[in-house]
Amino acid sequence: MTDGPSSPNAPEQQNPSQTDIDQDIALQQARMPASNTVTFGKDNPLPLDAGLDLSPFTLAYESYGTLNDDKSNAILICHALTGDQYANSPSPVTQKPGWWKRLIGPGKPVDTDKYFVICSNVLGGCNGSTGPASINPQTKQAYGLELPIITIRDMVRAQAMLIEHLGIEQLFCVMGGSMGGMQVIQWASAYPERCFAAIPIATGARHTSQNIAFHEVGRQAIMADPNWHGGRYLDHDTTPRKGLGVARMAAHVTYMSEQSLQNKFGRNLQNRQSKTFTFDADFQIESYLRHQGMTFVDRFDANSYLYVTRAMDYYDLAADHDGQLAKAFMGTQTRFCIVAFSTDWLFPPAEGRLVVHALNAAGASVSFVEIDSDKGHDAFLLDEPEMLDAIDGFLKSAHKARGLPDQKEEQEAHT
Amino acid sequence: MTDGPSSPNAPEQQNPSQTDIDQDIALQQARMPASNTVTFGKDNPLPLDAGLDLSPFTLAYESYGTLNDDKSNAILICHALTGDQYANSPSPVTQKPGWWKRLIGPGKPVDTDKYFVICSNVLGGCNGSTGPASINPQTKQAYGLELPIITIRDMVRAQAMLIEHLGIEQLFCVMGGSMGGMQVIQWASAYPERCFAAIPIATGARHTSQNIAFHEVGRQAIMADPNWHGGRYLDHDTTPRKGLGVARMAAHVTYMSEQSLQNKFGRNLQNRQSKTFTFDADFQIESYLRHQGMTFVDRFDANSYLYVTRAMDYYDLAADHDGQLAKAFMGTQTRFCIVAFSTDWLFPPAEGRLVVHALNAAGASVSFVEIDSDKGHDAFLLDEPEMLDAIDGFLKSAHKARGLPDQKEEQEAHT
Repeated sequence: MTDGPSSPNAPEQQNPSQTDIDQDIALQQARMPASNTVTFGKDNPLPLDAGLDLSPFTLAYESYGTLNDDKSNAILICHALTGDQYANSPSPVTQKPGWWKRLIGPGKPVDTDKYFVICSNVLGGCNGSTGPASINPQTKQAYGLELPIITIRDMVRAQAMLIEHLGIEQLFCVMGGSMGGMQVIQWASAYPERCFAAIPIATGARHTSQNIAFHEVGRQAIMADPNWHGGRYLDHDTTPRKGLGVARMAAHVTYMSEQSLQNKFGRNLQNRQSKTFTFDADFQIESYLRHQGMTFVDRFDANSYLYVTRAMDYYDLAADHDGQLAKAFMGTQTRFCIVAFSTDWLFPPAEGRLVVHALNAAGASVSFVEIDSDKGHDAFLLDEPEMLDAIDGFLKSAHKARGLPDQKEEQEAHT
Repeated sequence: MTDGPSSPNAPEQQNPSQTDIDQDIALQQARMPASNTVTFGKDNPLPLDAGLDLSPFTLAYESYGTLNDDKSNAILICHALTGDQYANSPSPVTQKPGWWKRLIGPGKPVDTDKYFVICSNVLGGCNGSTGPASINPQTKQAYGLELPIITIRDMVRAQAMLIEHLGIEQLFCVMGGSMGGMQVIQWASAYPERCFAAIPIATGARHTSQNIAFHEVGRQAIMADPNWHGGRYLDHDTTPRKGLGVARMAAHVTYMSEQSLQNKFGRNLQNRQSKTFTFDADFQIESYLRHQGMTFVDRFDANSYLYVTRAMDYYDLAADHDGQLAKAFMGTQTRFCIVAFSTDWLFPPAEGRLVVHALNAAGASVSFVEIDSDKGHDAFLLDEPEMLDAIDGFLKSAHKARGLPDQKEEQEAHT
């Protein structure tokens, strides 16, 4: 494996010395100069659910805080569908501040004075980790649809290799929302001994029919765009902007609740006194959605959108355990805090409760926090003090149970 | 005005004799040979909410049953967004049986042995009434986006002209679901003395922000298709099939409930034993949606889809009455039966209840039937015995209140 220049805890440099890997790294780093990257070479292939090995492959990641001596204070953050590794630092693509800044930082629930926080771009993504825009070493061209389908299990398997690479035997906590929450559930199921605690938020252990339906609408919108070119748009020096924009618009509606849309936009007109009797964006909600679509295409790769939506659709943890979700967690010692939001209709509290029931049946330690919110699915990214409080309380309790030093002791130890 | 060949109660033929009108009629009839049409000429312009007159214009309609001597037994059926006038007879386009056959027919709640049932294609539609695919008499080409924006009020104003043309002073009942329900509400508000009874189903007196959002996604999908050509695709001998298909897919998800999708499709695979690890339609729900998209484009005009969605988005009856919905119904003598379905998330029961409260405040006679159904918005088109029973009971009671002869009396009168 090969490390990017600023990777902490870099193990002794191995020497795969393949031109392919160098090319891959060069491409990744050109795209994402600010992220740490680790490239796993041919000696470390990733077995994919699709039935073949991926090799080489790169994961890009960010970290915050300091890993303690016994490497017991690491928290892995798993990002959502179109998220990235910049959970607590500005994205070099959008220049926006970290997407979970409310939660992470000194003195915040995920306290970077206490914890070493890692967030990696998912496999199949487009922010430095290997995805469909990466160079296929076989063809020296971008993979496009030649990249095998990536599953949530593959994403987590790759993350586990990264965590191992960082020398961390057990994560203090794995946490994330939406697709990130699916990864958390998968982590806890596949590697129970490596997760002391787990916080899946606004998520479930499967994608429902309705969720698949909305993703399929988005995929068809992308594939309908003639600029998609069967996934080979990079060869044509173009991107399916319109299709991807429509896909984002459709998805974005599902991230909000009817109530939040009504409160935020209602039937308000956009910078005009009366309807224009045209197909202009008369309503604020139309203008907002168009803007969401347009800005999204500047930061996200269309093929990557196909891959990550497919990963969510394919996820069904119970199906991997004879249809019995409880079997996925038998004997687990991981402590769970499951968070759901009342108006989330992508992952309604009932989906979270299915996981809770399975964990109960498996005899696991689990808290369920159902938060009354009007913000819909996106609540986990927004200002939800109840969520911050719940995570704060759960982490403090887990911190103590894990026997980590409290802040005061640590400070004393350093003086 | 000019009647098609089989229009009943045709008034004395007037003579606008414009080539333009003839062309228009010829086109309409070529498109929809089976429907009755009425064309209102330059002597009968339709004042549009957009601020100009539409003239000439054509309405295509179907009728079932017989108008009685005092013309007191007419029921107007208003169709939904992509519906048509074939409520009780096979569509010549799709060959499918009438879309409300469960409700209409001899011995059914809308009993064609008792009632004269009319259903007209909405203005802006694409089944014989004037819409964006009709010939613009000014340019001798299809209107495309040159057709002014059509509103629900315009649709109803045009229908009122048709009803007047048929010599009917008062409708015994106006009924319809979804966009059809909006028309019912508009009929009862604008022409209270002309509606003895009204049955708005799965509808509301406005489109919410979320509803506008989904329509805007559909419109953008159509406009993103290069075959749309700014609305002039007929000139290019093409249609934006892919864009319209995606629009339909997005909309179709909203017509079903999460529960019905889960019950009907769940995560079942489509004719395969395992996932293909491709972007094929692995899941039944994907295959179903693609099919819905593909078949829709064979029966519906893309520009027409823009117009009818815009009509729904623009509808806000309270806004036309100083924000007070009750004002829209003050002094009404119309009897209302409002029907809502528990899992309809386009027009949830709360939206129906807003209309009920306004009617209560206006002192109107109103029944509210909230039906526990898992079928979502489309329940009004499906097998919902409770809906049929509610309509049956309400119509029987209204029938009596209106002093219409009961079936038995009628039969005796004819023997």
